[in-house]
Amino acid sequence: MSYDDSNVFAKILRGEIPSHRVYEDDDAIVFMDVMPQAPGHTLVVPKAASRNLLDADPAVLGKIAPLLQRIGKAVTKAFDADGVTVMQFNEPAGGQTVFHLHFHVIPRHEGVPLQAHGRDMEKPEVLAAHAEKVRAALAG
Amino acid sequence: MSYDDSNVFAKILRGEIPSHRVYEDDDAIVFMDVMPQAPGHTLVVPKAASRNLLDADPAVLGKIAPLLQRIGKAVTKAFDADGVTVMQFNEPAGGQTVFHLHFHVIPRHEGVPLQAHGRDMEKPEVLAAHAEKVRAALAG
Repeated sequence: MSYDDSNVFAKILRGEIPSHRVYEDDDAIVFMDVMPQAPGHTLVVPKAASRNLLDADPAVLGKIAPLLQRIGKAVTKAFDADGVTVMQFNEPAGGQTVFHLHFHVIPRHEGVPLQAHGRDMEKPEVLAAHAEKVRAALAG
Repeated sequence: MSYDDSNVFAKILRGEIPSHRVYEDDDAIVFMDVMPQAPGHTLVVPKAASRNLLDADPAVLGKIAPLLQRIGKAVTKAFDADGVTVMQFNEPAGGQTVFHLHFHVIPRHEGVPLQAHGRDMEKPEVLAAHAEKVRAALAG
């Protein structure tokens, strides 16, 4: 499988479409999932072009992993979460729907199951408010 | 939350209980999940003591991430999979049941949903055969 740069995350990376961004550095951007499985569902997206984990540069993976921790801690703080679920999907059979490598970081609360992925589009004002909470947690 | 070294993965790391191991290096061991959500469900476990992602040493995370790719490729080959699902759970609300950091790497096939986690214990001879397939894929 090869990389196709017409995917929606590539468009976000190129600034062609907006996102509710919470963090950016040389290697990655982090923004809110527009169809969250729980409030605060955040995506960590390496800037380097790869379809998924299987074709990624191992050096990129090594840089991204500590960022998953930082974002996991930030969403825990921002949403007063009881736990965090991290998921990464490869190919349609593995659950992947956007074909640019990304990691889901989802704050969780006791007794609240995950919503099905890709079901409901969250309101932009809600996503903007959630992004602000995560940015504040990262800064604080 | 603190680390308690009486967890089952700590016991496996100390050699106190057996596992169907497929890989080991200075930083991690990899073995079959005894309650697989799909055939070939593999666990990547850093040797360093941490409860989960949130209290892990970022340097350990940086070393582990490329191994997730290697194991993802190996289980894809070993099980002729159509995709791979990677999951990492933090705290009970996040889905965690064993409190030593670990990553689930699960080969997937089109149209086959994941089984519920922790439901059925797989037969040891099946796990042994699956471990052998993953070891062969890693070597090949």
